[in-house]
Amino acid sequence: MLRFLLPVSLVFSVSFASAQQPADDAATLRKLADEVLTHSNAYANLRTLTKEIGGRLAGSPQMPKAEQWGLKALQAAGADTAYLQECMVPHWVRGAKEEVRIISKRRDFVPPLQVLALGNSVGCGPDGITAPVLEVGSFDELEAKKDQVKGKIVFYNYHFNPTFIKTFYAYSDAVIYRGAGASRASKYGALAVIVRSMSHAANNFPHTGAMRYNDSFPKVPAVAIGLEDADLLSDRIKDDKDMKVYLHTDAHFLPDTIGHNVIGEIRGSEHPEEIITVGGHLDSWDVNEGAHDDGAGCVQSIEILRAFKALGIRPKRTIRIVLFANEENGTRGARKYAAAAKAANEHHVFALESDAGGFTPRGFSFVMPAEKRAKITAWKPLFLPYGLYDFEEEGAGTDVGEINEAMGTPMGELSPDSQRYFDIHHAASDVFEAVNKRELELGAFGMAGLIYMIDKYGL
Amino acid sequence: MLRFLLPVSLVFSVSFASAQQPADDAATLRKLADEVLTHSNAYANLRTLTKEIGGRLAGSPQMPKAEQWGLKALQAAGADTAYLQECMVPHWVRGAKEEVRIISKRRDFVPPLQVLALGNSVGCGPDGITAPVLEVGSFDELEAKKDQVKGKIVFYNYHFNPTFIKTFYAYSDAVIYRGAGASRASKYGALAVIVRSMSHAANNFPHTGAMRYNDSFPKVPAVAIGLEDADLLSDRIKDDKDMKVYLHTDAHFLPDTIGHNVIGEIRGSEHPEEIITVGGHLDSWDVNEGAHDDGAGCVQSIEILRAFKALGIRPKRTIRIVLFANEENGTRGARKYAAAAKAANEHHVFALESDAGGFTPRGFSFVMPAEKRAKITAWKPLFLPYGLYDFEEEGAGTDVGEINEAMGTPMGELSPDSQRYFDIHHAASDVFEAVNKRELELGAFGMAGLIYMIDKYGL
Repeated sequence: MLRFLLPVSLVFSVSFASAQQPADDAATLRKLADEVLTHSNAYANLRTLTKEIGGRLAGSPQMPKAEQWGLKALQAAGADTAYLQECMVPHWVRGAKEEVRIISKRRDFVPPLQVLALGNSVGCGPDGITAPVLEVGSFDELEAKKDQVKGKIVFYNYHFNPTFIKTFYAYSDAVIYRGAGASRASKYGALAVIVRSMSHAANNFPHTGAMRYNDSFPKVPAVAIGLEDADLLSDRIKDDKDMKVYLHTDAHFLPDTIGHNVIGEIRGSEHPEEIITVGGHLDSWDVNEGAHDDGAGCVQSIEILRAFKALGIRPKRTIRIVLFANEENGTRGARKYAAAAKAANEHHVFALESDAGGFTPRGFSFVMPAEKRAKITAWKPLFLPYGLYDFEEEGAGTDVGEINEAMGTPMGELSPDSQRYFDIHHAASDVFEAVNKRELELGAFGMAGLIYMIDKYGL
Repeated sequence: MLRFLLPVSLVFSVSFASAQQPADDAATLRKLADEVLTHSNAYANLRTLTKEIGGRLAGSPQMPKAEQWGLKALQAAGADTAYLQECMVPHWVRGAKEEVRIISKRRDFVPPLQVLALGNSVGCGPDGITAPVLEVGSFDELEAKKDQVKGKIVFYNYHFNPTFIKTFYAYSDAVIYRGAGASRASKYGALAVIVRSMSHAANNFPHTGAMRYNDSFPKVPAVAIGLEDADLLSDRIKDDKDMKVYLHTDAHFLPDTIGHNVIGEIRGSEHPEEIITVGGHLDSWDVNEGAHDDGAGCVQSIEILRAFKALGIRPKRTIRIVLFANEENGTRGARKYAAAAKAANEHHVFALESDAGGFTPRGFSFVMPAEKRAKITAWKPLFLPYGLYDFEEEGAGTDVGEINEAMGTPMGELSPDSQRYFDIHHAASDVFEAVNKRELELGAFGMAGLIYMIDKYGL
């Protein structure tokens, strides 16, 4: 076990902060941290959302339950006003059955592969698809083998690149196969696509996620399989030249339906017309409890409101906590929010999202002009004692991205440690038990501290 | 989901590093990271140690199996020499039965509490102990109530302080009740002590760990109970004035026995007489697989050796990978290692330990003169792209602490994120599945990089 002598870093960081910032900012952040780490409701709120409601895709029966949960949670946290903002959302359903099975002349038993249809995929019809498989490791390889594609199922077996330290880069590098693979293959006559799941987990859970068709080409079913099954399929293909795969999915769209952003506000005391948005997305994929993605972001955002109220922090500007609808397969919630804000000529100062999991926070990423970023970066010493040090990254979440696109609003995102995220992302393993209470709370504190400072000093 | 634009931080950090360090140091660290993240054996080695051997307390039958595992792993990793260093170790055993049960005149069913005897505790004898319970929240309260102690079981119900950001501070603050609580209470006539487990986990696993008797006072049994049961017991005590508790433990010592440190060396090419020690402790408590504590430290240390060999890195100084015996309840392995090194007049440059879990690394803590620390701190920009930024903390592990005490050797310890550690520390939940492959590998890389730099530049 560790033997600890002196908390040098605590002493070091606090005095450094004093030299740079008014001492009362450090003191307020300390009070915020104490409040969140001692009295937070975030973990309990997350338990309710995940265990009593669970998976909640746009259009599902769970979604209105989640909206009511969010409304009540914001009211209980002390919002001045809490309300629903209506929008239309797509309504995709997984359907009754999904299956991928190896069909071989050999007499050995191979269990069905662990499979999940990708979001927005079409179904295959009642008979399923039985065809040989063409494995490719890249789009380049697909193009090189385009004459071999017709009548086959294309299997994209691109691996996460382990040399990226922040796993979001490995995801960005690989997710093109999930997003665009179906149409790239159907262009050459593929009947369906199978994708190696967007993950590097040491297990066989398949990971779903949105895909998008190119309307110039036929729409063919697209599914993802677990990593161990991807390796199994790849080995089998090399070895069993007569092999075919049977693929079945009943995925389909129903008509668009009504959804809601759930919003809670603390009205600003000095500049109520200036708005700071903080939020996460309320929807999740249907296959899990949506604990990290993005129940964590929702409960962290609600916790900011509760902590401010508990400490009697009255923001100068209006703080809007927004639980966005339909981030996973449409972004209709964020688009509605941004369009309504623009149409009403609202003045938005900043938008912050938490949508990278409830893991231990390391900092924030931002998209804003250099001089605004420099203002925030000057506050780094205040956050260092709490483990938040990485303020350099560029980028932000999908929902706040709509606000930035509509109105040029400076935006940011909580940057938690990324190592575990893609183990559970969009897979059945994203459950309440995967979230650590303290990590969740430290992320909520980090967000609360940043919002406090931006509200106090402006941007 | 995140939308990532530019990896600004990667560009920023690499160019900053170039301005400060020879470009080849950054390049070597990049190669080390690529090697570890692509070809590491650490996770597979940990699976073998935890699943095929499991809990391995000093004196247990599993310990020699673990020693053989370590020897083979070091040889496979490419050690020039690998050998066992004999030492004597204590041999404490948990015994056949341990139980804590509420005895009440009420007719309600209360299941036995989740309990683990503390390491080094004595047993209670065949009839167990049945007595009323005195709950105290602190040693001050114990002293104030010392006249009420005689003939009772003292229940120390001190909670982890959640406002410490790094959880090791909360542990240091609370662990005095585990370590010293028995004798402090038996001084006033307590028959036994029950301790709230040293944890803040959201579950009821009890956590064991070493305690130490003060030989001036009677030795009474000492056990820990799960947090939920501690709350239950506390509530019950307030409510049920006639309540007693039945406590039973068969814990006892057998005679000291033989143990071994397991050591693998790469002989230095220029200064083979200068020694850098890197290691973890091979033993674990009997109640779990010893995955984080400290299988992780052992496999990370072995991985340094493998990565150096794989990349053809020939250190100038001798690198000794040491899997220490008996850290949990005696430190006899480290004491033997240090005493032998001192007796042989060895010249030790630095000693590094990993004994704070296989969680995502944030930096290192050190104990060394300021000018040596400054030398290491100047290398921070090289480590920042890999998430290692915190070099300010004071302190290091128990095993390297013995080397430092014997010979004044500068020492350090890997500092992983601490938020999850005390959820599993010394509890049945410290199993292989609690370790994340990438987090484990990043910790191994961090250590490898630090050892590389210290070997190259000296201290």
